[in-house]
Amino acid sequence: MSRAIDLAKKGHFTTSPNPRVGCVLVSYKEGVGKVIGEGYHQKAGQGHAEVNALAEAKVNNPALIKGATAYVTLEPCSHFGRTPPCAKALVDAGVSHVIAAMVDPNPQVSGNGLSLLEKAGITVQSGLLEQSARLLNVGFIHKMVNNLPYVRCKLAASLDGKTAMASGESKWITSADARQDVQRLRAQSCAIITGADSVLFDNAKMTVRWSELGELKSNYPKEALRQPLRIVIDSQNRLTPNLALFEHQSPILIINGIDPDYVENKIESHLENLPKWPHFVEQVQLPVTENSQGKLKINLKALLEYLAKRGLNDILIESGARLSGAFIEQNLVNELILYQAPKLMGGDGKNLMEMPSVSKLNQAKALTISDIRMVGVDIRITSQLTNTE
Amino acid sequence: MSRAIDLAKKGHFTTSPNPRVGCVLVSYKEGVGKVIGEGYHQKAGQGHAEVNALAEAKVNNPALIKGATAYVTLEPCSHFGRTPPCAKALVDAGVSHVIAAMVDPNPQVSGNGLSLLEKAGITVQSGLLEQSARLLNVGFIHKMVNNLPYVRCKLAASLDGKTAMASGESKWITSADARQDVQRLRAQSCAIITGADSVLFDNAKMTVRWSELGELKSNYPKEALRQPLRIVIDSQNRLTPNLALFEHQSPILIINGIDPDYVENKIESHLENLPKWPHFVEQVQLPVTENSQGKLKINLKALLEYLAKRGLNDILIESGARLSGAFIEQNLVNELILYQAPKLMGGDGKNLMEMPSVSKLNQAKALTISDIRMVGVDIRITSQLTNTE
Repeated sequence: MSRAIDLAKKGHFTTSPNPRVGCVLVSYKEGVGKVIGEGYHQKAGQGHAEVNALAEAKVNNPALIKGATAYVTLEPCSHFGRTPPCAKALVDAGVSHVIAAMVDPNPQVSGNGLSLLEKAGITVQSGLLEQSARLLNVGFIHKMVNNLPYVRCKLAASLDGKTAMASGESKWITSADARQDVQRLRAQSCAIITGADSVLFDNAKMTVRWSELGELKSNYPKEALRQPLRIVIDSQNRLTPNLALFEHQSPILIINGIDPDYVENKIESHLENLPKWPHFVEQVQLPVTENSQGKLKINLKALLEYLAKRGLNDILIESGARLSGAFIEQNLVNELILYQAPKLMGGDGKNLMEMPSVSKLNQAKALTISDIRMVGVDIRITSQLTNTE
Repeated sequence: MSRAIDLAKKGHFTTSPNPRVGCVLVSYKEGVGKVIGEGYHQKAGQGHAEVNALAEAKVNNPALIKGATAYVTLEPCSHFGRTPPCAKALVDAGVSHVIAAMVDPNPQVSGNGLSLLEKAGITVQSGLLEQSARLLNVGFIHKMVNNLPYVRCKLAASLDGKTAMASGESKWITSADARQDVQRLRAQSCAIITGADSVLFDNAKMTVRWSELGELKSNYPKEALRQPLRIVIDSQNRLTPNLALFEHQSPILIINGIDPDYVENKIESHLENLPKWPHFVEQVQLPVTENSQGKLKINLKALLEYLAKRGLNDILIESGARLSGAFIEQNLVNELILYQAPKLMGGDGKNLMEMPSVSKLNQAKALTISDIRMVGVDIRITSQLTNTE
């Protein structure tokens, strides 16, 4: 199973919106096991892990498939999607044991694959190395269970929690190592959310730069680079096509606000007089709600629900103190990744996070720290927000 | 030498203003070494490590002292202080080899002890496990070299760098584990500096509570508890004897300001009409200087020089954003110990540190992170200020 998990990891940057899955087929004779086929899921629309493993076994060890044991990191599917069900493929091939690390997280189909196998006379088992298998697909599992993407928020500040001087001076607070680490975060995300302010102020491209992926480059060829969807919240229609953001021809989604009475339950594009965007730019309108200051703002929960429906599992928020703060204030962030530069900027610097509705200590947002480590000269703190769904 | 360093650590909380020193005497016969005596320095005015080790050997192995090897964590002293010179004691006892982990850090006597030994025909060597030996006496060494104490500044904040809500609500931001860790920091310090604001606002006692020393209690008996000197900077004479600070009968030093034209080079107590302080309270006046806002403030560097002259090696600053910020702003802090609670308080919270003179990014204070770890649910970050003497 450990090998199957390693295989699944090979799809880390490419399977989305599908889960990362690995499969190892083992033939046991007189107590000695022999690996006869391996496979992993590489990309949506292409073969699943089990089918790829069976295909390899058919070439190299066709006589040993009958009676073999399949180790698979996720319960084999039982339904026809873009590919035929894997459970049926395992039955047809004649394997006699299937060991899954975890059952399907989708509550509507969970257990169906294993019971299909069992009915065909195959011995099934699940739960082996389940914790490790779950870590392969944090976003996928979270979306299946909660109908919301798994939301990470990346922020960077000095050790005293400042992101810039009062003058706005802020370029390169963290080191090149930390910025490279952020490239890795981007590469593993389905989409990156930012605000119009950040795009206008920094004129950022928000792309993954292959040259900055460091050691990831070895198992992530340049041709396989998948750009995450770049989502910009632009409630005041301030973006213009001449920004650096639009230089790179990878998908962009611009979110504008619309009066909720008008849109009702219909989430569609109703914009007129749009700027002439390049072909890879899509623009949608989402309902607005009043925030704690009485301002109309995009309903961030509705945005995340919409993104989940679009099949986005892992979202990275890379934005400023206000938009990041708003997501956290509304308990919509699952994980905070904070880079702290070894600097002290003093009380006149700009705050890491604005949360206007938090004015009492018992309204402060609670976290659980899951990892602290050095990234070059900076500290990276990974934490889970405690009150988020 | 490793054993000698362990012995030295036994004096961790008690030797100040003297260094922590350990000594092991070994008799080598036919290539086999036998420990014949051990000692460490326990308290100023009492026996030094070498003398204690010789005393133990005289009781248990008197015949083996002649020709023995002494491992000592610091170069034996060559001058008469409160006790006779240890180098002479080693010569008189007849040891043949002395191995020191490091030479005396005092530039005026460094090497004198070893050369006294060498002149008496003893083979000497130094530098064995020097790095570990230096860590025993960070403050002592720093003061010897720089004529300033080693200054640690302890601060606690939320992950977004806030110490309290705008309302002032702040009690117990960090966990009991972190507060216990602070007790350990206090216990190893010669003195704690705080400001009148902190004393008046929190009504804190600033003492070491033996019951909160955790695992330290096992090798630190309650009777041996030494309270660090409590230093309060009270430039406006606002302290009154009814504060909780004065309930505990351990030394307190109140610092008031005085016009520099008046005090010139004389640092003495010149106060009239003092409140009636308890007997353990001392009050001195130190010169004031103008800060970046044009306000007259105690000259913090003069304060530290004065404390070094009083024999204080390790100082802990436990104060608010302004006083801590002022020490850091003036490059007077060597080490920052920051506890971060797993909370987000938002932009309306109070800043960790005020440094009014820092308004450009290149004025930000640079740090080198030396340790990050969890203390209960909180993070503790230890760092060295880069530009401090």
